[in-house]
Amino acid sequence: MNLYDVSIAPLVRNLQNLKHILQQGELYAEQKKVEPEVILNSRLSIDMYPLTRQVQLVSDMSKGAGARLAGLEIPQYADDETSFEMLYARIDKTIDFLSQIQPAQLEGAESKEVVLTIRKIDLTFTGLDYLQKWAMPNVYFHITTAYNILRHIGVPLGKTDYLGQKR
Amino acid sequence: MNLYDVSIAPLVRNLQNLKHILQQGELYAEQKKVEPEVILNSRLSIDMYPLTRQVQLVSDMSKGAGARLAGLEIPQYADDETSFEMLYARIDKTIDFLSQIQPAQLEGAESKEVVLTIRKIDLTFTGLDYLQKWAMPNVYFHITTAYNILRHIGVPLGKTDYLGQKR
Repeated sequence: MNLYDVSIAPLVRNLQNLKHILQQGELYAEQKKVEPEVILNSRLSIDMYPLTRQVQLVSDMSKGAGARLAGLEIPQYADDETSFEMLYARIDKTIDFLSQIQPAQLEGAESKEVVLTIRKIDLTFTGLDYLQKWAMPNVYFHITTAYNILRHIGVPLGKTDYLGQKR
Repeated sequence: MNLYDVSIAPLVRNLQNLKHILQQGELYAEQKKVEPEVILNSRLSIDMYPLTRQVQLVSDMSKGAGARLAGLEIPQYADDETSFEMLYARIDKTIDFLSQIQPAQLEGAESKEVVLTIRKIDLTFTGLDYLQKWAMPNVYFHITTAYNILRHIGVPLGKTDYLGQKR
């Protein structure tokens, strides 16, 4: 077992599953003859982020984790997605970025220092703690919330859509 | 890095965070003068599980993962919780079970065979795949859904409640 197996591999798989879930949302909009924006702007509570932002955050958390652990610069995306197509492209380029990372680039990353600055406060982690206490919980949070937003508005989805076909 | 760091440690932390989140829900019921059952029976969609079942499933996935990876018998609980107090007790006994597992008991578990029978179909995993493709995604799914149910009905919660104070 190495760090790659518990970081890059699940991050890529989660992004693929998220794209699949969103595709079911897009299909639902077509079937219901509603504007895609209605779905993209849906949220579970007025002070929670809408679907589009949930997807952007999965991307941010994923590329941040890959880049920090592999010692690469974090790709900057414009957060300007306004359609399903644009969200798919965002997911795809995040997957492309992660897919270029090789297991050897993560060697020893579990014990390197990672510092996040959140609202002007520095949070210092080991690489492993950053992954386990920050990156993965956040990724799963925003994917599950995207799924829950879609389920809440009636999109037919099941646990298998979230877990992915290839178990 | 060993398997314990990416299994038992995050499972225990997630259960502690879940208990904290539920306590905010119980407090909210008191403040709003509603029966706790109203909150415990809340769900995001008529064909999704209510809050109580989400908590039971976090417990099931957590004790299942700990037991299977450590080669122990899976503790059986009755799924008869009808109050916040009973759910806290369920979480506490799940934490107690996991806390007795030592890192040495997981040695080599990443490559052992784990077979799950889901709706009469056998799913065969390595220990690592079982953890990464089944147990952890399910645990995060049901904790986030518990959080989302509470947020949806108005309980004041933030990401820190979900991530836990000690990052």
